[in-house]
Amino acid sequence: MKPAPLLFVFSLTLPAQVPYDRILHAAREPQHWLTYSGTLDAHRFSALDQINTTNVSRLKVAWMYQIRGRHKFEASPIVADGVMYISVPPSDVTALDLRTGRPLWTYRRPIPEGVIVCCGQVNRGVAILDGQILVGTVDAHLVALDLATGRVRWDTTVADYRTAHSITPAPLVVKDKVIIGMAGAEYGVRGFLDAYDARTGRRAWRFWTVPGPGEPGNETWSGESWKYGGATTWVTGAYDPGTNLVYWGTGNPGPDYIGDVRQGDNLYSNCLIALDADSGRMKWHFQFTPHDVNDMDSNQIPVLVDATFRGAPRKLVLFANRNGFYYILDRVSGQFLLARQFARQNWAKSIDAKGRPIPNPATIPSVEGALVYPDDDGTANWFSPSYSPKTNLFYQNVRELGGLYYRTEAVYQPGRLYLGAGRRRIPGEEEGSGALRALRALTGELAWEFKLHSPPWSGILSTAGGLVFSGTMEGDFFALHAETGTPLWRIQTGGEVWANPVSYAFEGKQYVAIAAGGTLIAFALDGR
Amino acid sequence: MKPAPLLFVFSLTLPAQVPYDRILHAAREPQHWLTYSGTLDAHRFSALDQINTTNVSRLKVAWMYQIRGRHKFEASPIVADGVMYISVPPSDVTALDLRTGRPLWTYRRPIPEGVIVCCGQVNRGVAILDGQILVGTVDAHLVALDLATGRVRWDTTVADYRTAHSITPAPLVVKDKVIIGMAGAEYGVRGFLDAYDARTGRRAWRFWTVPGPGEPGNETWSGESWKYGGATTWVTGAYDPGTNLVYWGTGNPGPDYIGDVRQGDNLYSNCLIALDADSGRMKWHFQFTPHDVNDMDSNQIPVLVDATFRGAPRKLVLFANRNGFYYILDRVSGQFLLARQFARQNWAKSIDAKGRPIPNPATIPSVEGALVYPDDDGTANWFSPSYSPKTNLFYQNVRELGGLYYRTEAVYQPGRLYLGAGRRRIPGEEEGSGALRALRALTGELAWEFKLHSPPWSGILSTAGGLVFSGTMEGDFFALHAETGTPLWRIQTGGEVWANPVSYAFEGKQYVAIAAGGTLIAFALDGR
Repeated sequence: MKPAPLLFVFSLTLPAQVPYDRILHAAREPQHWLTYSGTLDAHRFSALDQINTTNVSRLKVAWMYQIRGRHKFEASPIVADGVMYISVPPSDVTALDLRTGRPLWTYRRPIPEGVIVCCGQVNRGVAILDGQILVGTVDAHLVALDLATGRVRWDTTVADYRTAHSITPAPLVVKDKVIIGMAGAEYGVRGFLDAYDARTGRRAWRFWTVPGPGEPGNETWSGESWKYGGATTWVTGAYDPGTNLVYWGTGNPGPDYIGDVRQGDNLYSNCLIALDADSGRMKWHFQFTPHDVNDMDSNQIPVLVDATFRGAPRKLVLFANRNGFYYILDRVSGQFLLARQFARQNWAKSIDAKGRPIPNPATIPSVEGALVYPDDDGTANWFSPSYSPKTNLFYQNVRELGGLYYRTEAVYQPGRLYLGAGRRRIPGEEEGSGALRALRALTGELAWEFKLHSPPWSGILSTAGGLVFSGTMEGDFFALHAETGTPLWRIQTGGEVWANPVSYAFEGKQYVAIAAGGTLIAFALDGR
Repeated sequence: MKPAPLLFVFSLTLPAQVPYDRILHAAREPQHWLTYSGTLDAHRFSALDQINTTNVSRLKVAWMYQIRGRHKFEASPIVADGVMYISVPPSDVTALDLRTGRPLWTYRRPIPEGVIVCCGQVNRGVAILDGQILVGTVDAHLVALDLATGRVRWDTTVADYRTAHSITPAPLVVKDKVIIGMAGAEYGVRGFLDAYDARTGRRAWRFWTVPGPGEPGNETWSGESWKYGGATTWVTGAYDPGTNLVYWGTGNPGPDYIGDVRQGDNLYSNCLIALDADSGRMKWHFQFTPHDVNDMDSNQIPVLVDATFRGAPRKLVLFANRNGFYYILDRVSGQFLLARQFARQNWAKSIDAKGRPIPNPATIPSVEGALVYPDDDGTANWFSPSYSPKTNLFYQNVRELGGLYYRTEAVYQPGRLYLGAGRRRIPGEEEGSGALRALRALTGELAWEFKLHSPPWSGILSTAGGLVFSGTMEGDFFALHAETGTPLWRIQTGGEVWANPVSYAFEGKQYVAIAAGGTLIAFALDGR
């Protein structure tokens, strides 16, 4: 599907305003990129096909924007009406002119001393709605900025950063609400998912991912352990207007790596949860890794696909989990339909007919050291997969790396690490490897793979041009043939790729953009 | 002149060794860039013409290399035998594979606490000789690294960094010696130019740019002022094997901005000095700005040209001085031949027949404030000009900006600023402007100019392809028609350009490389 010329005219002649209806129907205007994963069903698929398998070799740098920070640059851009909006670590936001890459405005978030983030003061992107840009901050605020100027419209405290609550994911706009996840499970926080009124910044609902006393699920936590139960929500979810459900992954239980003090399944850690978008009430949940002792955060992207599955039309959610299994669930009911291993793992002996794993006790961290595949960065992680409706393939970057886990004591202290093991590298396997794998979406079977030198941290974009874009830790940004995995183009960006690619069109040209190292790079055929 | 195919074979089949003979005849192998300014006569001209006026619009990013530092990235690369050697601020060195831009090795220089550099912990480039890479450090050492591994071969203390001596320029290799300049005039150091034996790191000679008692020129400093006289040597010079003279610019006298305590001409501050390459003895000097009170460092690039001047063949040195005048001297004798204003200035009423300025007393910093053009960053500065033998034009980036100078007291204390004025911006002229000017080399007349939004900090490369390359503070890197100044190509690099461009060829393709922001970018026709 090519962008209709009418929409280009629209984008140039109307003032920059992004009502929710545009986000809901983002697939109708592929020249923009209006929500974190491109569309609310989280396909990270671009319907643009100007750049395609026959001409991608002509792809060139159009412009670059360099940041000054020293943190990882994990931003997935939002593109609307001639402007690109990016978050810049730690929690800044910059609006860039699509024609030149020059900054139009920058919001600098002062970060207080003492902010605690396990894995870097990063941010994965902003959201857009009406005349506002929305960003979560590492000091656990949600901030609305004026689209045209970057001025703060409202600034809401989501949680207390002094107890290691932080926000790194992009918000998800659903109707008039801004849904925002949070992090801090390594420090014994109690996880939640929040929704805020986009106009006022007032909280509309909160769903605690660790149920309190008297709530269903609290019985899956022994003693007082629910208070420090983790299960954070630090990667952006998806939304289905048909079910009116928000789908969101949850992280590991706390304390990490050690289950003694939290006997039980530890719901809703390592789940996919489905919440009513209006009330935040849970409709269903599915737990991938009950009573986790291997840091198997299920903070991956739920990908919503309607398909004929085993002979019947079905609303599905596809989920390539950090634990090494690819899952298909019914997204109306949460019913488990399929699990298939897509990467090396040894923590589960198998997955039973209901989707529950049969754990391998040898992977419980011990004094002698337990050998675990994958390591605690997982096979999948926050980096986005992509689903192409043209190829019906699910594209996933895969980390192939194990670790040795040595048991330690975990004692809760506010704002301090709350971990029950330490990791060592496996002698001779220090480096690991990686692969971009194309899985048949409805079976999880491997269609093809493209091997990577190192375990990757880059997301994936697939396009109607028959291409799959991704990056490497060696600094390559590349395009593969979406049906075969044949490499068709690459460039050396000079920086590690810790980000998700997007695509958009401007003034008749399709662009692909990626953050690499400290640089946001926009590519187009024959450059600008 | 195109590179001979024979030389390409040579570069691929012999081990990487760069004997001095190759540097001396660097013009014979334009596929490499063997010395700071490309050739010892400092033309910063590339004889490659694969990229030319008819095809430069196809110039694309081939690869990038991103640094992590926060300082200005002022490196001018050295390219030899498949490898690019760059200095990375503060004083690191990285060798990059020309095919991919990937690092082959990196030398990290630990910088002690308390290093004092007026204008940033920067480095402008390395030198190459035989199997070594040579780099000066901000803690005032000269270090030789193994070409293949980056291991330290020797490390010589040039001066004491605790008294604000530092090294920021690239070394210049002449025969078996490494000539290195130094900085620190804002802190009352006494300037010198040193030569070291490239094999051992032992000092071969030192020329004090401020003569001591009993030496000729000491009488141009009243009292004890010579001890803190500045006249540093912080930009790389040129060498003529015919005269066996090293040509090098010297900086402002100390204390800066105030002349009362140093009555006299203050030789050899603000000079071009010509030293015998073997002994370091001075053959001649020419002082552009005697008894300077406006920070008119003559640390620009002396450009050596043989031409018929006023009817007779003559060995010339061309010098676009920070003070706003373009000079031509006889480089055998030092005889003044011509001065012509090329930028706005008001510090001199005129230049007399011997080349001595008639100063304007109104520009002496005063309690009421003195209006001075140019400001203390000058019209020219360390960024390189370029001379094209094809167009016979001298290309110079020009800063058009003045300042208001208010007198203060200057008291010498080791390692502390030793300045006699403070600067304010001129109301309404805070931003200034800039231009790339093409001067007729033998008259200094303006052939054409290309206006720049801001005062530039980028050097210039001209090529046999009829092009002039340079960059802007807005992040553009661009190519102009060398004869007309018509803009033919540009790209937005996303970072300020504080560096000098170079050109080289590899595997049959011509490249142009520039550091911009934190990124070294290599361009080629149609990319890699």
